[in-house]
Order: sequence, then C-alpha cells, then structure tokens
Amino acid sequence: MKQAVDGTVRTAPIGVFDSGLGGLTVLRAIRERLPGEATVYLGDTARVPYGPKAAETIRRYAIEATDFLLDKGVKAVVIACNTATARALPDVEARAGVPVLGVVEPGWSAAASASGTGRIGVIGTRGTISSRAYNRVIHSHRPDAQVFEQACPLFVPLVEEGWTDDEVTRLAAERYLGPLLKQGIDTLVLACTHYPLLKPLLARVVGENVRLIDSAESTAAALERLLVSEDLASPSGPPAAARYYVTDEAARFDLLARRLLGEEVEHLEMVSVDSTG
Amino acid sequence: MKQAVDGTVRTAPIGVFDSGLGGLTVLRAIRERLPGEATVYLGDTARVPYGPKAAETIRRYAIEATDFLLDKGVKAVVIACNTATARALPDVEARAGVPVLGVVEPGWSAAASASGTGRIGVIGTRGTISSRAYNRVIHSHRPDAQVFEQACPLFVPLVEEGWTDDEVTRLAAERYLGPLLKQGIDTLVLACTHYPLLKPLLARVVGENVRLIDSAESTAAALERLLVSEDLASPSGPPAAARYYVTDEAARFDLLARRLLGEEVEHLEMVSVDSTG
Repeated sequence: MKQAVDGTVRTAPIGVFDSGLGGLTVLRAIRERLPGEATVYLGDTARVPYGPKAAETIRRYAIEATDFLLDKGVKAVVIACNTATARALPDVEARAGVPVLGVVEPGWSAAASASGTGRIGVIGTRGTISSRAYNRVIHSHRPDAQVFEQACPLFVPLVEEGWTDDEVTRLAAERYLGPLLKQGIDTLVLACTHYPLLKPLLARVVGENVRLIDSAESTAAALERLLVSEDLASPSGPPAAARYYVTDEAARFDLLARRLLGEEVEHLEMVSVDSTG
Repeated sequence: MKQAVDGTVRTAPIGVFDSGLGGLTVLRAIRERLPGEATVYLGDTARVPYGPKAAETIRRYAIEATDFLLDKGVKAVVIACNTATARALPDVEARAGVPVLGVVEPGWSAAASASGTGRIGVIGTRGTISSRAYNRVIHSHRPDAQVFEQACPLFVPLVEEGWTDDEVTRLAAERYLGPLLKQGIDTLVLACTHYPLLKPLLARVVGENVRLIDSAESTAAALERLLVSEDLASPSGPPAAARYYVTDEAARFDLLARRLLGEEVEHLEMVSVDSTG
C-alpha cells in the first residue's frame, strides 16, 4: 500500500467536503492544528441537507464531491459530514486513490479513550443517529462500551439562528440530553459539525462530570496522524492558502460561514458538481 | 382568454406542488373544501428546502414540477410553497397554459380584508420573508396597510419535531412575535405551509385581539373561486382520488405526512423531475 511519496504531493492541498457549511467547523479545526496545509473546501449548498435523502442519493453526491476535489489535485479527502461519512465512506475510499478520513471514526475513537465508565452518549442530526454509524464502530474500539444515542434536530437551526447562548436553546438541550444524563453517561460525542458552537451551553447543561468530545477537533487530530504516517505532511512554512467552493449561492452565506469558520471566507467560487447536469 | 370548457377537463385533477411535505397542509385544506376534486401532489423532497437556494435555481425547479403535473393532465396548478410562489409564479403561469394559483396572494388578500387597523404582521421562513413577496402585493389590496415581517426559521423544525404544544416552542414564539405585537398588529398572516399546525399555540401567544390568517385555508378558498369563475369545477360526486409523488424517499415520510395532511398518504410513488437528470 505504502509508496514513496513524490515531494510535490506533500504540498498538495487537503480536500474537505460537506453537504453545506457545517463542515467549516472541521476545516477550522484543521487549519488551526495544521496551518501549513493548503485546503480546498467544497460545500454542496445546492443539495443541503443530505440527512433526509436516500442512501443511494447520498452516495452519488459524495462521489461527485470527491471527483471535484480530486480534480483540484488534493492529497487527502476529509468527509466533513456525518451523513456522508455514515453512508458513503467505503464508496469514497474506493473512488479516491488518496487517503480518506470521515468524521465518525475519530470522534468515536476519542470518546472510547476518554470514557471511564464506557457509558457514552452520542448526539447528532436525525440522519446521523438513524444511520447507527456510531453504534457500528463501537466494538472495534471498546467492546464493553454502551452507547446512548439522541437525535437533536433543532440544534442546527438554533445554531444557524445564532441562539447559541439562549434560554430557548438551553431548554431544548435539557429536553434532548435529559434521557442521556439519566443513563449516567460520562462522555458525550458531538456528532454534528454545527455542534461545536454549542459547546459552552452544552457543557453547562451536562455538568462537569461529563466530558464533551468535539468531532471536528478529533478529526483534525486524526488527519495530522494520517499525514505523518503516510509521509504526506506539508513541509513547515507560512500559513497556506484556503480555497472555498459552493454549489449554490446560499442566502446568508457570509454570516453563517464567518460564524462556523471563525474568520472571513476568501477565494470563494460557485461551481456545479452534479454529474447528471 | 376564456374558452368553452370541454366537459372532460372539469373532472381532471388539481395539481399541487411544494418543495417538500409542507404543502400537504394546503392540499388538506383543498380536499376539505373541495372533496369532489381529484388531486395530484408533488413534493420535491430530493431538493427540499428551496428557501436558501438561488432564485434562478428555484425557477428551474418550479418549471420542472409544473411540467410533471401538466404531464398528469391537471386542469389547474397550485404552488403550495411560499418560496416557489415568491420566486417563480410568473414563470409557472407562462409555462402552464392552465390557471395557476400561488399561496401568497390569497393569504395576503384575506389579511387585507380582515384587518381593521391595517397593521398586519407576516411570519414565514427566512426565504419567504427576504423575498419581500408579501410587501410587494400590499398596495394592490390595501394602500393604507403597514406590513411588519418576521422570519421564524425555527418553526418548521419545531413542527417537524412534533413540539407543536410545547414550552420551547412557546418561548421561541414569544421571542419572534414580541416585536410584531409591539407594533400593534391586529392580523397575523401565517405565510408558511407548516404553520397551520402551530395555530393553537400562536393564538395563545398573540391573544384574542390578533386575528390569524392561515394561508392554506385562504388558498383553498381562492381555488374554489377560481374554478367557478373559469368553469372548471368538477361536477359534484363522491370524494375524488388523491395521488402523491415525491422525488426522494424522505426519512420519516409517513409520520410527517400524516401529521401535515391529517390522514394517511395512499397512492404514493417516487419519481424524478430533474430535467438535467
């Protein structure tokens, strides 16, 4: 599997895709941890959200996004979307010919290591939770763990509304997390790319005895390990360029992107990735 | 414009389309008011929601939906989607060759008649409110009216979560409606197809001095007038058939559809309407 890596490959960008803008929190974590890596982000905003769509449709979208990134010469692909990871990771791996990383495995792996009791909560969109992706990887890391899952479909719109420190959100969080806390979890995986923005509020709701695992940060850490092990890490240098592509000019793009990415989005271009188009 | 109507046209179905399932509340109002009319419903669930998409994209989707309904031999088209009405009504009218009705005009017209003071609130999704569609029709009906608009992006996910009689929803409604109530509105237009399910809760929040206008009901009433004036009404008979088409097998379709339609969905088929596919 391992081959000698051509030096020019190391300076190639990391490709990151998501169904929309939520994956920008993953990109942000990557850029903070690996500032010397150039990045190409694709947000499939014309077809967001993937969650409610059929598995076959999601696989087609993920392949189209992968082809787009490969065309940009990326040296690795990060699927910064829980739905696409759950439904299409093997398909993307088969297609890519470069290392591929999803957001499910790193978050889960971090939770399995962090938990003392093995009682682990997972929250995400309805699509992610119903995919049972987190349940499926459990035994590979920690056979004794018990997973308690809860879909929190209001969290994404609450984040997009900007109500990240708000009474409405606190009430909704208490409603969603109450059953998990009753199960005595000691670790909670934030299995949705929008949720890092809710971390301070969620930390107050769950209390100090429950550890929050941010899958964006876990994915960035896993990417670093992957680049090193595959001899693909960029030589250190000045902060590298970030390019952004979306498939539709989303309303409120600037506001939302700034909120999720933590900085202004520059070098933005609108593209079509629909292979049937 | 008026032509003698062939008798077989009168028994043709009414075509209704929406970006997803919300339009089922409009279909429900139509079937309650006009039980003798056969109906064909198309929910473009593969591409829902339209709201955040570019105007040009929405127009293409609306034309594709219209073509699909025309192919089913409909005698009239109802655009049961505020976004598509706001963005694409003239395009659909130009395409259809049969009478076309959107959901904006009937709701607004009912509000203009109902309001005593002319101070009218409009609530909807972010896409509907930012389209300014309701503001644009104001002067045609009531030149003295003042319109106060408020986007309520959390209401659709709250309805889909089933939290229609809930403390979280009441708090969110107070937050959204407070500024409108301060403006002294006496009429509030529910300019989103999901909102009829929130009517009891919203009625409590706004109090008895504010009249709620349900655009689904207003649209059904306008359709009845249109069919009579165009001599297109079906001869009275037994309850007529309803057929349903979706463009993707939406998760939780049954639950959501039952909730929005108020009955089971029968004769459901999955279709593709994407002209680029």
